[in-house]
Amino acid sequence: MARKSIVLINTGDGKGKSSSAFGVMGRAWARGWTVGVVQFVKGGKWKIGEKKLAEHLDIEWHTLGDGFTWESTDMDETIAKGRHAWEVANEKLASGDYDLLILDELTYTMKYEWVEVAEVVAGIENRNPKTNVMITGRGAPQELIDVADTVTEMVKVKHAYDQGIKAMKGIEF
Amino acid sequence: MARKSIVLINTGDGKGKSSSAFGVMGRAWARGWTVGVVQFVKGGKWKIGEKKLAEHLDIEWHTLGDGFTWESTDMDETIAKGRHAWEVANEKLASGDYDLLILDELTYTMKYEWVEVAEVVAGIENRNPKTNVMITGRGAPQELIDVADTVTEMVKVKHAYDQGIKAMKGIEF
Repeated sequence: MARKSIVLINTGDGKGKSSSAFGVMGRAWARGWTVGVVQFVKGGKWKIGEKKLAEHLDIEWHTLGDGFTWESTDMDETIAKGRHAWEVANEKLASGDYDLLILDELTYTMKYEWVEVAEVVAGIENRNPKTNVMITGRGAPQELIDVADTVTEMVKVKHAYDQGIKAMKGIEF
Repeated sequence: MARKSIVLINTGDGKGKSSSAFGVMGRAWARGWTVGVVQFVKGGKWKIGEKKLAEHLDIEWHTLGDGFTWESTDMDETIAKGRHAWEVANEKLASGDYDLLILDELTYTMKYEWVEVAEVVAGIENRNPKTNVMITGRGAPQELIDVADTVTEMVKVKHAYDQGIKAMKGIEF
């Protein structure tokens, strides 16, 4: 079966990795696609805006992460949740139920070694051929870049927080 | 009056400049902000998905461009439309009616010299202090970067079209 779908990665230290993924979510919605979002590691106030938009558009949204590790008070639980998030995502990749899956901040599950890079690569390669995949997060590993079709590195030229301006509601989350 | 708003630029040759801006549009909508979009140069099939999303969310959308210059059969009309788009955007910047203005592909009006960089810089600096601004497009001039708060360069690591895969409905537009 010829693969009809593509894999996109937004990586790098600059702003725009997740916001670009949620822009693509909007395009996919506009085309009548079935979209799913798995949010891997951000909790709390982050992604509230995106989640509200997804709910408004009837887009399936799973928050399975437990915040970034440096916020964690129970590392075993964090690791278990991170692994579980990947297992759920992997099932969705294989299911054939989605035209687009957004795996937001997936790279951190590999960076913190909750999930092996080879497992993620296999999940991507063995996905249902119809399912496009959008992955975000800093430090995408080379093996993942190798199996992707479109990879953008968001490079910070300057950022408001360097001038002491805090992350803004409505813009950053 | 202290400025409460910021200016963001997405530039570079990689994918994600406009999609990131439309992700931010979704966040701003989720917060109840008043958002306006001025689409400078893309016409035709491009931005159909984003426009549909904006309509669904009751976000004001203006398409004033006439496609990229290399598609133009009437250059004088193209230039006049590009200039007019900037004049409309400039009024909106000053009006105080918006929490966020997205000036999509604005950089091309400067690249093709329809509008002087200094005019755009003045419009940004003299905007209503409440209005956040998100500008997209390749080749943002240094003078514009100088007055921005957050600037991201989208760098192409790889792109599906390099393997002959055409721009996909639902992903790219």
